[in-house]
Amino acid sequence: MKYLEDIGMKARKAATVLNTLKQEEKNQGLRKAANALLTHETKILEANEADIILGKESGMSESLIDRLTLDHERVEGMAKGLLEVVALQDPIGEVMSMTNRPNGLTIGQKRVPIGVIGIIYESRPNVTADAFGLCFKTGNAVILRGGSDALHSNIAIVTIIREALEEAGLPPDAVQLIEDTDREVAREFMRLNKYIDLLIPRGGAGLIQTVVENSTVPVIETGTGNCHVYVDEYADFNMALDIIDNAKTQRLSVCNTCESLVVHSKVADNFIPLVYDRLTQKQIVFRADERARAICNDMEPATEEDYGKEYLDRLISLKVVDSIEEAIEHINFYNTKHSEAIITSKYENAMKFLNEIDAAAVYVNASTRFTDGSEFGFGAEIGISTQKLHARGPMGLLALTSTKYIIFGEGQIR
Amino acid sequence: MKYLEDIGMKARKAATVLNTLKQEEKNQGLRKAANALLTHETKILEANEADIILGKESGMSESLIDRLTLDHERVEGMAKGLLEVVALQDPIGEVMSMTNRPNGLTIGQKRVPIGVIGIIYESRPNVTADAFGLCFKTGNAVILRGGSDALHSNIAIVTIIREALEEAGLPPDAVQLIEDTDREVAREFMRLNKYIDLLIPRGGAGLIQTVVENSTVPVIETGTGNCHVYVDEYADFNMALDIIDNAKTQRLSVCNTCESLVVHSKVADNFIPLVYDRLTQKQIVFRADERARAICNDMEPATEEDYGKEYLDRLISLKVVDSIEEAIEHINFYNTKHSEAIITSKYENAMKFLNEIDAAAVYVNASTRFTDGSEFGFGAEIGISTQKLHARGPMGLLALTSTKYIIFGEGQIR
Repeated sequence: MKYLEDIGMKARKAATVLNTLKQEEKNQGLRKAANALLTHETKILEANEADIILGKESGMSESLIDRLTLDHERVEGMAKGLLEVVALQDPIGEVMSMTNRPNGLTIGQKRVPIGVIGIIYESRPNVTADAFGLCFKTGNAVILRGGSDALHSNIAIVTIIREALEEAGLPPDAVQLIEDTDREVAREFMRLNKYIDLLIPRGGAGLIQTVVENSTVPVIETGTGNCHVYVDEYADFNMALDIIDNAKTQRLSVCNTCESLVVHSKVADNFIPLVYDRLTQKQIVFRADERARAICNDMEPATEEDYGKEYLDRLISLKVVDSIEEAIEHINFYNTKHSEAIITSKYENAMKFLNEIDAAAVYVNASTRFTDGSEFGFGAEIGISTQKLHARGPMGLLALTSTKYIIFGEGQIR
Repeated sequence: MKYLEDIGMKARKAATVLNTLKQEEKNQGLRKAANALLTHETKILEANEADIILGKESGMSESLIDRLTLDHERVEGMAKGLLEVVALQDPIGEVMSMTNRPNGLTIGQKRVPIGVIGIIYESRPNVTADAFGLCFKTGNAVILRGGSDALHSNIAIVTIIREALEEAGLPPDAVQLIEDTDREVAREFMRLNKYIDLLIPRGGAGLIQTVVENSTVPVIETGTGNCHVYVDEYADFNMALDIIDNAKTQRLSVCNTCESLVVHSKVADNFIPLVYDRLTQKQIVFRADERARAICNDMEPATEEDYGKEYLDRLISLKVVDSIEEAIEHINFYNTKHSEAIITSKYENAMKFLNEIDAAAVYVNASTRFTDGSEFGFGAEIGISTQKLHARGPMGLLALTSTKYIIFGEGQIR
């Protein structure tokens, strides 16, 4: 598809320039882009208004309209986001190790940009500026494919950033938007491995599945979170209740929200009524196994499907187990490898859980809600990887870098 | 496909056990496996004989028969390979960083096994033992899909290793072989992302292409190498000749062999006749551009295709350029991101080449032949990654690991 080939070639070309930029040049570009977003706020809001009108006409739900909507504060937020990236340390160019071999060769491993990064995402238009900021800071060209609902907003944002880069003498093709929102174009985009080094899907499970199934570009899966809290027989009940309340109810629609409880049978009789009371006060509905329902029969019965589900809603599943081993097995079977927590005051159980649970982040006595780039101290994140290659957990700037070996010789042959 | 699902489930189960093994338990398994290979040498050689007879019947070439053939020395080599892996430091369990957050959470990043690794490879049966050794040491279960030509040999080797593990009280499903060599089974194997965390193809460009096109499992591409040596206008001719001779002729059929020369026009008149003499003495045939052929008209003309080709043969392409910029552009366009070298005595050109060439290993004044796990000091390698995610360049034990965040709390909520 010539349309995509052109975009790919331009991105590659921009990437070779970005690779040679100094940190201060990149920061300058980010500052100019942040400024331009503020200066041209009206343009962005007008374009966003067009998206909103179309969205309402097509019967978009209130909550989706809300995600789509930009206002003065949100535009300011985008600009502020870019300035926060300016403040982060540029990882590019660091030589992580350098050794001297017996034959005198000096071999260093140096951090370099990945090259060209593709990002496929759904409605929220502020992702457009965020993704550009992180990719640009790490010297990567980015090709964005946003949702069709936000097309006008995205075009406005990308156009403003590109103009700002051009004025700063930097390659505007550092960020390109795929404006053709046809599905066939998206599929072709996933097969553009000749030009794209990494593809990051950000969105629901359906989008991620489609990308994994179809992409020939290396993919980092992000975001799906069926997170568990396991209440051990040695749990402090008050701590467990506070953590579960926070992990489930602080924000319903995010990936590090708790979707499933696992409770040791020795404390089930006493603990389940307490957690039921605490969460039902916040309109959470329980779907539980037979043993839990025998204790608290107002709960709905859980199906097999419930245990594997990321509800993102006022629902939680509950399972009673007879041992920590059974808890670990249950969690490792149903989880999405995102974030899991144990509440216990027994050292051996804490260590066993940390060692044997297979997930990006494993917690002892803390809420799963902390799995987040800024909570981890990375400053910003491009997503949360739930796979095991390259990056696992919150992905900050480092996740957008690769390495190369640089070898200094004096005529060595083998 | 039930056959593969069963294998996948067994591997996953074995992986949960391997994840908890201590270094010494894994080393014990490797030692037992090495011993068993030596003890049962006759079984292996008999099975190999069966493969060789079938290979000869089907008209297999001499060189392929040679790659397929095992003898006392090669079996000993396999056992020695496993013992070498015993001697390497186990990277699993290392906590690479641990920080304390303002809210008191302690967040560590710990090295863990990837889980289940699939390896698809062609004829050489010693890969079977090598791949098992590296995966086992890093606590990963491995599923092997070797070439049909080596099926009997592979079955013998895997059976012996599995028995040795069982005797040592370790899970035999740490290594499984796909014995059904049907192509459809191989394709299904590539789509087993429910059970497999990483797929590594080892073999020719065709195999790697097929895996990239079809796999839903994350893939690390290995091995294709269209490596260049660039002779700068500031090159020491003797050093250049020695390095080119070594890089091209020391071993023809490996991925870090030089396949293409790039020569600065200012030295072309004097250098090209010298390098032509040196390599034609070793029966290397040149395919060159018009400018080079004007200097040395015995060379064959190069086509566009030649510049992009990994010959693995007595052929080399040659291109004359007018600047280091043109050299870098040419190399970045045609290379396979493997290994590239500049010969120069000018500091600025060395640094420019190191910075701007996009490859896993970039050399100044040394042979590309050094891109190799043991030459880099990793002890052993599972392949050489030519992609940018997760691992780039020679892949030692570290490339077979992932990380997870372990978080120690005392009731923190967000």
